[in-house]
Amino acid sequence: MGKITTAIGDADGAIGAVDIVNITGHAISRDFTVNAKDVEHGKRIVECLRKVEGLEVVHVSDRVFLMHLGGKVEVLSKSPIKTRDDLSMAYTPGVARVCNSIAEDPDASFALTIRQNTVAVVSDGSAVLGLGNIGPRAAMPVMEGKAMLFKEFAGVDAFPICLDTQDTDEIVRIVECLAPTFGGVNLEDISAPRCIEIEERLDAKLEIPVFHDDQHGTAIVVLAGLKNSLRRIGKAMSQVRIVINGAGAAGTAICKLLITSGAQNIIACDRNGALHAGETELDATKEWLAQNTNPEGVSGSLSEVIRGADVFIGVSAADVLTVDDIKSMSSDPIVFALANPDPEISPSLAGPHVRIMATGRSDFPNQINNVLCFPGLFRGVLNVRATTVNNEMKVAAADAIADVIPPSDLLDDYIIPSVFDRRVSQVVAQAVSTAALETGVARRKTKASYHLS
Amino acid sequence: MGKITTAIGDADGAIGAVDIVNITGHAISRDFTVNAKDVEHGKRIVECLRKVEGLEVVHVSDRVFLMHLGGKVEVLSKSPIKTRDDLSMAYTPGVARVCNSIAEDPDASFALTIRQNTVAVVSDGSAVLGLGNIGPRAAMPVMEGKAMLFKEFAGVDAFPICLDTQDTDEIVRIVECLAPTFGGVNLEDISAPRCIEIEERLDAKLEIPVFHDDQHGTAIVVLAGLKNSLRRIGKAMSQVRIVINGAGAAGTAICKLLITSGAQNIIACDRNGALHAGETELDATKEWLAQNTNPEGVSGSLSEVIRGADVFIGVSAADVLTVDDIKSMSSDPIVFALANPDPEISPSLAGPHVRIMATGRSDFPNQINNVLCFPGLFRGVLNVRATTVNNEMKVAAADAIADVIPPSDLLDDYIIPSVFDRRVSQVVAQAVSTAALETGVARRKTKASYHLS
Repeated sequence: MGKITTAIGDADGAIGAVDIVNITGHAISRDFTVNAKDVEHGKRIVECLRKVEGLEVVHVSDRVFLMHLGGKVEVLSKSPIKTRDDLSMAYTPGVARVCNSIAEDPDASFALTIRQNTVAVVSDGSAVLGLGNIGPRAAMPVMEGKAMLFKEFAGVDAFPICLDTQDTDEIVRIVECLAPTFGGVNLEDISAPRCIEIEERLDAKLEIPVFHDDQHGTAIVVLAGLKNSLRRIGKAMSQVRIVINGAGAAGTAICKLLITSGAQNIIACDRNGALHAGETELDATKEWLAQNTNPEGVSGSLSEVIRGADVFIGVSAADVLTVDDIKSMSSDPIVFALANPDPEISPSLAGPHVRIMATGRSDFPNQINNVLCFPGLFRGVLNVRATTVNNEMKVAAADAIADVIPPSDLLDDYIIPSVFDRRVSQVVAQAVSTAALETGVARRKTKASYHLS
Repeated sequence: MGKITTAIGDADGAIGAVDIVNITGHAISRDFTVNAKDVEHGKRIVECLRKVEGLEVVHVSDRVFLMHLGGKVEVLSKSPIKTRDDLSMAYTPGVARVCNSIAEDPDASFALTIRQNTVAVVSDGSAVLGLGNIGPRAAMPVMEGKAMLFKEFAGVDAFPICLDTQDTDEIVRIVECLAPTFGGVNLEDISAPRCIEIEERLDAKLEIPVFHDDQHGTAIVVLAGLKNSLRRIGKAMSQVRIVINGAGAAGTAICKLLITSGAQNIIACDRNGALHAGETELDATKEWLAQNTNPEGVSGSLSEVIRGADVFIGVSAADVLTVDDIKSMSSDPIVFALANPDPEISPSLAGPHVRIMATGRSDFPNQINNVLCFPGLFRGVLNVRATTVNNEMKVAAADAIADVIPPSDLLDDYIIPSVFDRRVSQVVAQAVSTAALETGVARRKTKASYHLS
């Protein structure tokens, strides 16, 4: 034991617990729980242990892997089936009456089945987190995690669906065929530009709403954070000059939502610099941006066009901004550097030169995290059986998130609520339901119920 | 109140409870819970109440509908997400490590995701219970009920998937694309003949097993009941003359499994009577039956060919057999009249003339119910990550079900265990796992676990 604890200590590991698993004539098997700083540190500790004479390292687990064993969600009955009576209501023959009701009135499925409360989390694994195209099997843990968050934060049932195809037409057709099972669809981690077409075609076709969180969830939370930042500083959305770096699906969605909210001076940049009308050979997304932003037709690199900007929003890549770029911005610059996992500029570097900074990271203040949006948004959608998520609902969600923080409580490092602020999903749901009702896309006034005549 | 209780009493309803809901200046709203014999009786009670002066019937619910509100299953997190630490393990950044592991080794998905324990219950709603082609929305309550039974009886997570297409190629392609999400597929309530092709193509293509319960679940439970019946009577499978009425998917599956189990003299009948080699214009299923059954080439109506038969198995329609048909059978006739909801002959009629009778109904002894098979079968399949459900596994399941009743405990009205006999799913799972291992279709020796090197 002494050699083992010494080895662990030498490697700076902290022993959490020791349990004897097994004793034979020749060997003692013990389970050591060791706290490590990070994955690399954990590996170093194991390497030190492997060198200990007389010790065999049989099995190494990582608590993250342990909590993933067998998946992270399960399906439960809402009522027990213990007696013949239970069986005859949940299954034959009682269930036949319910089936007939729905056969006569298909919309009754929204009251009498899981459609009332269930969202499909659909991915093809082509753009997972910062990992890229890792495919559907490898995407499952993320979609399961998303399902956990839907339930934990808003009581929405969500089920992961990872598809073994990346063909746009196939994905559209499959989701169309899955619609009778669900009350809504959350598209996730599907790469651009396919994701834009897939969402548009599906939302138009289906009776249930289809929402790509990577686009619009991000846009909504960005809008919330930006509104509060402008409130804090005392600038107006219609007056500020905004530079968005990243002309993909998220960047475009952010752009569109900001324009809807009154922004009049946005420049969108891709790798080649500012997009402007007159450029040739742009894909459809960038063509839209070129036509609908940059009213002055400015051209140039990011460093050139960020001069004098009030707001920078990055949904691009790490380290594309320098301190000089920040310094060249207007007074009280607002910087949302959202590249994942490393932002466009590190907050440590940018900190002294910005007025308000936000990233996607949990280890800095002002985390722009989609968890603030999607649970409450779908809760609100399902409560009134909205058929789509329109702009009014998106803006309503953003306002609800922003308004969780009373203006008098705003601080430079507190312009967005914490993901664990339990008020958020409730107020988002309420605001989204109200907006849906007001814009005529809700099919019910209140949470669905079922009446026999 | 007096008028109300009188009206209910006059209609033979029994008042279970009364609660005051609301009182205004003009009216009192009360909630009455009334026990009725059946749906028709319930309607009569309501009609009597509508005639009561001064009473307005505002709302009528049925307890079956009430338990269906919002669906019958839900998705839960297996661990809470209450802190930043929880979030960083279930979601970013910790989840990325798990994704990368699966990206490097896709089979790790069977240990690290819900694939370890989850089955898709897939239907197109084309052949639901006795209701026919009611479509996917109306089929949802049945598939949700199936999911409840998987969980309640064997701890298998199951999710309903009702598809908005009845095209064979589309269904095959969709389920193929859904495979990364699941550890197995239970096809349900898909009409013949498409169901046969769909199951065969999918089971051949996918790394996970695909099993059509309406075909094989029925066959397995029939085989179990028949084995015990023959044990009880003292006849041998290889000696008995068996007539199967119904030449669809279930009839064919039963036939095949009985042949696998040693039956040598089966006659299959469709609406036109006995199928025999030499008949023309038969579909593929009936052609197979004609070629592989009826060794004597007997022809004629059901009434003609049932003469002298030892066993009758019906998967057809109500009231196609008469008492005279039963009387013309051999001594100690075994009759499994499984037509749903009304059997080929009522047990009351047949009772005095048969030795052993079974139906699909819960209100008679010897209920042939697929619940005896599919939960334990998939439990066994998932435990060893079997890639298919082969004949050995089917026979093993049937034997396990049959052997729950020791031969000395067999009675004429007790040849199949009760669906609530908790031993059944365990012994079926064990037997199916063993058979899978012995026939080389299991990918793991024991329940899946995950080791880091």
